[in-house]
Amino acid sequence: MAVYTSVDDEALAAFLSDYDIGTLLSAKGIAEGVENTNYLVRTTGGTFVLTLYEQRVDPAELPFFVALMEHCADRGLKTPRPVPRRDGARLSRLCGRHAAIVTFLDGVAVRRPGPHHCAELGRGLAALHRATADFAMARPNGLGHQSWAPLFAQSRQEADSVMPGLAALVDDELDVLAARWPEGLPTGVIHADLFPDNAFFVGRALSGIIDFYFACNDILAYDLAVCLNAWCFEEDGAFNVTKARAMITAYSAMRPLSGAEIEALPILARGAALRFCLTRLHDWLRVPPNALVTPKDPKPYADRLRFHRAVRGPSDYGLDTAASGAAGRVA
Amino acid sequence: MAVYTSVDDEALAAFLSDYDIGTLLSAKGIAEGVENTNYLVRTTGGTFVLTLYEQRVDPAELPFFVALMEHCADRGLKTPRPVPRRDGARLSRLCGRHAAIVTFLDGVAVRRPGPHHCAELGRGLAALHRATADFAMARPNGLGHQSWAPLFAQSRQEADSVMPGLAALVDDELDVLAARWPEGLPTGVIHADLFPDNAFFVGRALSGIIDFYFACNDILAYDLAVCLNAWCFEEDGAFNVTKARAMITAYSAMRPLSGAEIEALPILARGAALRFCLTRLHDWLRVPPNALVTPKDPKPYADRLRFHRAVRGPSDYGLDTAASGAAGRVA
Repeated sequence: MAVYTSVDDEALAAFLSDYDIGTLLSAKGIAEGVENTNYLVRTTGGTFVLTLYEQRVDPAELPFFVALMEHCADRGLKTPRPVPRRDGARLSRLCGRHAAIVTFLDGVAVRRPGPHHCAELGRGLAALHRATADFAMARPNGLGHQSWAPLFAQSRQEADSVMPGLAALVDDELDVLAARWPEGLPTGVIHADLFPDNAFFVGRALSGIIDFYFACNDILAYDLAVCLNAWCFEEDGAFNVTKARAMITAYSAMRPLSGAEIEALPILARGAALRFCLTRLHDWLRVPPNALVTPKDPKPYADRLRFHRAVRGPSDYGLDTAASGAAGRVA
Repeated sequence: MAVYTSVDDEALAAFLSDYDIGTLLSAKGIAEGVENTNYLVRTTGGTFVLTLYEQRVDPAELPFFVALMEHCADRGLKTPRPVPRRDGARLSRLCGRHAAIVTFLDGVAVRRPGPHHCAELGRGLAALHRATADFAMARPNGLGHQSWAPLFAQSRQEADSVMPGLAALVDDELDVLAARWPEGLPTGVIHADLFPDNAFFVGRALSGIIDFYFACNDILAYDLAVCLNAWCFEEDGAFNVTKARAMITAYSAMRPLSGAEIEALPILARGAALRFCLTRLHDWLRVPPNALVTPKDPKPYADRLRFHRAVRGPSDYGLDTAASGAAGRVA
């Protein structure tokens, strides 16, 4: 949530002259996005978001992200549409950074999502998964399940200083996930970071999904498991089964979940909780001096992991699995 | 340039329900203004800036600032117009802060103003001084010339650690200004902080003047002297007489300067340079831990002060004073 790079009026006007979106009216650095610098730009042609990609984004991966956003926008999803330069390029350079302009999406991020927000989000996630079925490019998940053990190795020694018992918990979980991580489930392009910060609402309706910079190819139901973790726990750590049911039901109505996907949800949810616990732990232990961004606490995701380890089965997420063989049946 | 207070969607929606500006479409914390938190807010009724007043603003002074903005907007100046609540109030509360909504002004701040920007600014400043002639409220200048000696006393011992010779320079200047500060010049409401950050341009035209939170009653020509310091020096510290001439000429065309005001410009410019040198020195020596804002360097204003101490007279600012008795004649 920071403006890392300050863009002055002359550089911005020169940059915009490569685009066919009119002349500059205003540009405000906005506190949005953790990794990159974003400006809200108004021109005589409309309102846009200018992103300057900072050091944590690999330039070689930018074409994937930009093409993915365009693909989704082409299919009617409420995702930012990259604006082409006059020469057709979707990527440019500004102030020594790679940069792109995308269309602005109205909406506000919801701090305390209710069940109807979760249902909207589930529908939007399923629409994303459907829309990307024919997306031609692919990107491996650099934070996928095989990365978790080596990632934890970098923080294991200090883990208990953050939360007593965390090292043993993660050690055990890594063993379980290595043995039980599902194979053969449907895969595709997932958002992989669809937290409430990255979803906009106007009134009760989902109006936008943003921040595709973790998008990658992985198990589709894992994306849903990420959202269960991100959207369906209360601030006090309690799991809200009503929200989970609303999300999964809405998702499944648009993209029916198979029996195997439903059965895998608890283990996928464990994996998703572990992934955010580990990346937060890593960053928590390595706050750079003069950091502009406060690191996120890993402990709530250790607590979510403990919750998922204790569930008895998919029914604990609000799924009706009593009807034997009814693949994708959700109550 | 920071978002000190994070406003969530529920609090903002409740806050907006007191206003008649439609429903919330988006809200982005913007990196604008040093002292307060600002959000760019879009509603179905338009685009606005929401300001939350942080600790450095005295709540007792807010009615002055808000009434001043409204007075100026009523007279057609390109200043933010406070938006009334349904009950007529221009001030409200949000997240434990005093808060106000004002209209959004297009335009971008210019990092390297040219002579035509300086002329536009001069015209805008004169228009502001004319428009406030019938403003009923008043506010003393808390950073006026009488405050400088006690302000410096708080930093004098450490001054030379910032810039060798600074203590002696300021001591001498305080003596000179105490003896020679002009009396009897026209006074009125001045902006008092009209730096390039606080002026917007669309293309070559001045499109907005913002940030009235230092506005106060003082010598009108002192405001012009502040702008000479803020706009007419190059990044390497060189004074640009072409810009100064453009600014003063444009100002004087709209509000003719008297002979006494012209004669006083050098001493007023010294005072203005000293004022910003002293407040920057004060803040430079007192950076709070975890500061969100980088303090500004006092040294360029000490250098400006040295420049003004060396000028021979108003002609060094581009004024044609050869024509004897031609009050307000500028070349």
